Amino acid sequence: MPAIRWAEGAEGPAGAVVVLLDQTRLPAEEAELVCADPQALVGAIRSLAVRGAPLLGIAGAYGVALAAARGHDVDQAAAALAAARPTAVNLASGVRLAQAAHRGALAAGADASAAARAALAAARDLHTRDAEASARMARHGLALLDELLPAGAHRILTHCNTGALVSGGEGTAFAVALAAHRAGRLARLWVDETRPLLQGARLTAYEAARHAMPYRLLTDSAAGSLFAAGEVDAVLIGADRIAADGSVANKIGSYPLAVLARYHHVPFVVVAPVTTLDPDTPDGPSIEVEQRPGREVTEIPAVVAAPGTEPAAVAPPGTQAYNPAFDVTPPELVTAIVTEEGAVSPVTATALAELCARSRQVTIS
Amino acid sequence: MPAIRWAEGAEGPAGAVVVLLDQTRLPAEEAELVCADPQALVGAIRSLAVRGAPLLGIAGAYGVALAAARGHDVDQAAAALAAARPTAVNLASGVRLAQAAHRGALAAGADASAAARAALAAARDLHTRDAEASARMARHGLALLDELLPAGAHRILTHCNTGALVSGGEGTAFAVALAAHRAGRLARLWVDETRPLLQGARLTAYEAARHAMPYRLLTDSAAGSLFAAGEVDAVLIGADRIAADGSVANKIGSYPLAVLARYHHVPFVVVAPVTTLDPDTPDGPSIEVEQRPGREVTEIPAVVAAPGTEPAAVAPPGTQAYNPAFDVTPPELVTAIVTEEGAVSPVTATALAELCARSRQVTIS
Repeated sequence: MPAIRWAEGAEGPAGAVVVLLDQTRLPAEEAELVCADPQALVGAIRSLAVRGAPLLGIAGAYGVALAAARGHDVDQAAAALAAARPTAVNLASGVRLAQAAHRGALAAGADASAAARAALAAARDLHTRDAEASARMARHGLALLDELLPAGAHRILTHCNTGALVSGGEGTAFAVALAAHRAGRLARLWVDETRPLLQGARLTAYEAARHAMPYRLLTDSAAGSLFAAGEVDAVLIGADRIAADGSVANKIGSYPLAVLARYHHVPFVVVAPVTTLDPDTPDGPSIEVEQRPGREVTEIPAVVAAPGTEPAAVAPPGTQAYNPAFDVTPPELVTAIVTEEGAVSPVTATALAELCARSRQVTIS
Repeated sequence: MPAIRWAEGAEGPAGAVVVLLDQTRLPAEEAELVCADPQALVGAIRSLAVRGAPLLGIAGAYGVALAAARGHDVDQAAAALAAARPTAVNLASGVRLAQAAHRGALAAGADASAAARAALAAARDLHTRDAEASARMARHGLALLDELLPAGAHRILTHCNTGALVSGGEGTAFAVALAAHRAGRLARLWVDETRPLLQGARLTAYEAARHAMPYRLLTDSAAGSLFAAGEVDAVLIGADRIAADGSVANKIGSYPLAVLARYHHVPFVVVAPVTTLDPDTPDGPSIEVEQRPGREVTEIPAVVAAPGTEPAAVAPPGTQAYNPAFDVTPPELVTAIVTEEGAVSPVTATALAELCARSRQVTIS
């Protein structure tokens, strides 16, 4: 079941829907969530039924296509979709891509239905390109691991979920681990559970199990003991936004891993498509970090509570929580950033700017 | 409701029980767990109904007294109690203390009932001394904070639970934070939730709320963002065992905080009674770290599941977890160890040996 797909019934585009694999119900059940209008998709993005930086870009683009196909106000829908979550740069850029295709078609004299088809074509193109990017990130990432690490099987630590559930293809960081597994060079995938919403325990473990990878789950703070015991050869994570200076916003808990990796001389590698690079955000402090409701911490996560029950409180009534969704790792703690256009190491503003320029040429050519 | 108490009904010592505040049911309810024999107490220790290094020592001593009062085989009970959890040195030493009092009385010609009274007197004495030690640790700890930090109100990060629920008094690290609060010098208590069993969310938040302290709860790995933002002035934690070289075994997640604190030049302070110092364990690698069942990570913790329900799985079936209960922080990452006999800083084997020697003199005199 794909993480996202576009579907049209007998009525054609006017009855189009965006169908999501509802990630809040994994791993207990593989349920589809059908979004028949952009507002439903905004809700699905906010509730994390669909999540992961590259996939959010694809979802945003399909959302614009859906608004156009269904005859909604496209600019209004685009604004709502882009604002559904603030940190992942891919969401807003996916939205803009489809919106530009729609506007361009209208400006070129297309009627509403042809413009809607143009928006859909842009979304589908992004979807396809993202799948191809996954495969190329996996190749570049594995080559980098082989360069950084001694020959033999690697023990890789990962955080949050970065596999097929976040992508048109096999993902970002997870796709590299999967490539290592297929090449017979993955000795262990250490999976951080990733509090508060347990994307590691629920989603990465689910994907690792499906591929029969040698994975072990751990609480996020147990990673320290693994580093101390010399049980981690490399850390591989994704990214939600990479600033021009190479600062990486990613799921909360990434930064402590970067500090631990540095202290233990372990490579800390970020894997993300070029679309995650944001030249308009100069540095780490400029990245807006989404603050999520405290009840994600003070209550058992709704995503793992028994269906139909109210989530139980864990902390005493009235407890306030500090619950940022992301943290920011400065470039000096990042060993390399792997993209579909190759790896950047050391991570500098110049090297990233060059990569962006090269990527634009590739896209335009 | 005290964390532990000894109770005798109309039948006297033959009907004695050890009454625990069942910590697995906090904060939802304050329920008593009555242990009428040593085996029930062993079960309560294993299930973490009673926990925390100093309190485990007291519980172990009362357990021996209970065995003696009830006419059980005292040495057998002592062995079972001491082995109930391996990492906290206080448990075994509390057991030995009461056992020695019992043996000593018998050797001096006492009858079974007088020997049982001697064991109980030793347990009560340990309980009283631990309460006094709390108060002295709090004083020494606050003085150290005032020395280490600029004048003004402190923002303290703590992990796990180290308050009245782990002690005959007000605890260890938490008692220092509470002393700062009473002195008007606590700006913020950052409370790590402490996965997997959420002692921070359930117990420290409960204690902080009761004292109206300005606390905020966070997931363990959100601490990184607080350090990066300069929001933490000091880390205060307890200890389950301190080796002769100053290596500190404490709740899993302590070591990553020590590394973060070092990276950000923030003091990392361990608060523990002298009984936690173990001269027989030479160094960190010699500390036995308890490995707990993987289901504490793969399932919603039973302690927070709805009463009467089976804990729900979080990870897919068959998922294996790495779940050490403790980690070990080497002395070079510990700014100071605060005990009831004063603070040691820098932490060296010599300074700790001197402290132990001083403490023995105090105890003997």
